[in-house]
Amino acid sequence: MKELQSKGRILLGPGPSMVHPDVLKAMATPLVGHLDPYFFEVMNGTRDMLRSVFGTENEVTIPMSGTGSAGMETVFVNLVEPGDKVVICINGVFGERMKDVAERCGASVEEVTAPWGEPIDPQQVQKVLQQSKNVKLVAIVQAETSTGVRQPLEEISRIVHEHEALFVVDSVTALGGIPVEVDKLQIDACYSGTQKCLSAPPGLSPVTLSPAAVDILRNRKSKVQSWYLDLGMISNYWGEDRFYHHTAPISMVFALYEALRILLAEGLENVYARHAENGKLLQDELQKAGFELLAKEGYRLPQVTSFRLPQGVDDAALRKQLLQQYNIEVAGGLGALKGQIWRVGLMGYSSNLANVRLFMTALQDLLS
Amino acid sequence: MKELQSKGRILLGPGPSMVHPDVLKAMATPLVGHLDPYFFEVMNGTRDMLRSVFGTENEVTIPMSGTGSAGMETVFVNLVEPGDKVVICINGVFGERMKDVAERCGASVEEVTAPWGEPIDPQQVQKVLQQSKNVKLVAIVQAETSTGVRQPLEEISRIVHEHEALFVVDSVTALGGIPVEVDKLQIDACYSGTQKCLSAPPGLSPVTLSPAAVDILRNRKSKVQSWYLDLGMISNYWGEDRFYHHTAPISMVFALYEALRILLAEGLENVYARHAENGKLLQDELQKAGFELLAKEGYRLPQVTSFRLPQGVDDAALRKQLLQQYNIEVAGGLGALKGQIWRVGLMGYSSNLANVRLFMTALQDLLS
Repeated sequence: MKELQSKGRILLGPGPSMVHPDVLKAMATPLVGHLDPYFFEVMNGTRDMLRSVFGTENEVTIPMSGTGSAGMETVFVNLVEPGDKVVICINGVFGERMKDVAERCGASVEEVTAPWGEPIDPQQVQKVLQQSKNVKLVAIVQAETSTGVRQPLEEISRIVHEHEALFVVDSVTALGGIPVEVDKLQIDACYSGTQKCLSAPPGLSPVTLSPAAVDILRNRKSKVQSWYLDLGMISNYWGEDRFYHHTAPISMVFALYEALRILLAEGLENVYARHAENGKLLQDELQKAGFELLAKEGYRLPQVTSFRLPQGVDDAALRKQLLQQYNIEVAGGLGALKGQIWRVGLMGYSSNLANVRLFMTALQDLLS
Repeated sequence: MKELQSKGRILLGPGPSMVHPDVLKAMATPLVGHLDPYFFEVMNGTRDMLRSVFGTENEVTIPMSGTGSAGMETVFVNLVEPGDKVVICINGVFGERMKDVAERCGASVEEVTAPWGEPIDPQQVQKVLQQSKNVKLVAIVQAETSTGVRQPLEEISRIVHEHEALFVVDSVTALGGIPVEVDKLQIDACYSGTQKCLSAPPGLSPVTLSPAAVDILRNRKSKVQSWYLDLGMISNYWGEDRFYHHTAPISMVFALYEALRILLAEGLENVYARHAENGKLLQDELQKAGFELLAKEGYRLPQVTSFRLPQGVDDAALRKQLLQQYNIEVAGGLGALKGQIWRVGLMGYSSNLANVRLFMTALQDLLS
């Protein structure tokens, strides 16, 4: 079998993003055990830094040992019991995925939908909550990776709490790119991934639960259906007790530690400003060049931009050319948008001026 | 927050083991996307090499995106439906964990037990299968990490198949240290971990399913309760279709690829011989020095050795000294054996003569 030969790519898709060289170095750090006193220090540091980036003081703030979707599953398996009523907001692939995951936990799901490319309307959430009694939680995606839509959360959070439900937010693509503000927005459960704006490799999913969500977890009637994602047990390992649960992915925790350290050294406000600036530049340049953006104006994420391909362009062939000639990866559309759009990520370490200029030049070259 | 400062340890616990320097280098390889043509090549190579190490031609042979326990959960969530009858063999922590996981899938569990330190008796399995009708699967641990017991599988496999049940084997600590031989032993579902004898960091769990197990999966009445671990969906990503399911932990797959390449370059027979030799040397030296081994003679794993501490020795304090003075990690006992035994791993890259000599010297120094 041949030796590994990856020279890497310029990753401008909607994840994974490029990994900071110091984070790659952290991945190669010689291991210590998962019960080593030094590893406990790294765990504590990682948890504290995650709290800063999530904007929370939540005790239960833990990087789960799986990719972003494992974080999604963690939230649903821990908070939902069979028969529970939940409301899922769906305006893209990840809303649909939440519905599938929730149903596998035995939830009875009601949907609030919006067309792909548009945000969820708070009034629709209000309406569903007024009609349904005893909704346990309302779940929504803050940054829809499949469309590039940025979802405002403030009003929906207020409505959800008025109806005494838990507010669950998917911040997989949001965290580290735009403010998440878990405490300020009264988010009860939030999960993310390492391979988007945190610029670490895929493999961990940071999760945080509010005290109210922890109460729900502690008072469950049934066992959590997943042993691997059982937050009650995992908290005993990440907390003071250090009870062995499973062998943590040590190298990935090292990488996340380093990624968070680099992010906080730049400063959260600076990081958000950089994402905002580069995202806006790309969107302006695309529009100037005559491309139509998919996400509605006012609801565009800076870290994922989706735009329609000109009629008659072969999506897959063009992306292949971009990869072969420019070593740049971007993504096509998912579901009904397959073949119609491109999704360009400017996340974390990938979000810089040079990448915007390079991508625009390459795009115009390939289409000329 | 301080920069990452791990200098690594001499890892002689029951996992994680030390990681080969070339595998650490693979961890730091610049990323490509999870749908990149080069990543597909690495996936195919990884799958082919996993088949060699598992001793199987099973189509469904996949490293799951979680640590060893995620592999355990994968097998149970995919093969078990609520109400199914399963038999779990329990002679240590990991048998107990299988029972917990199976029950969370709604299984009705019957146990076959043996004292910790002894193997499961095939006649006991026979007896339970004769009394119970319609047992769907029988699960057993080949290498009990909590005791160091090596479980013979041949006779139990024959009994299980006579009763038309599926044969499930936990090879987390076995794979790459002793022969697993999935096809020869007619194992229907087998899972492992990267951080034991494969000498990669923790983070992936190789799983393989026989055609009979795949049939059971395809003919389920209910959806698999875990979206994240749904092998039907994940096979569509690891197979020819390359359907996006979740973002694979790319760097970990790079590491596993490199670890398997190194292992197969040494040659499976040589690898097993090296483990056998170093394990036997350690066990002989321990007995010569007056220590009592926990695992019954004839059923001792070369890769994990457990021995009783002398009366009056403070387990935790002594391990702390070993870590501080010699930079060596070993593990104490779990459950009822806490404080009574030590578990010493000689796995993968950690299994060499120098480590045996160093450990014995350190142990005798600290106890003198």
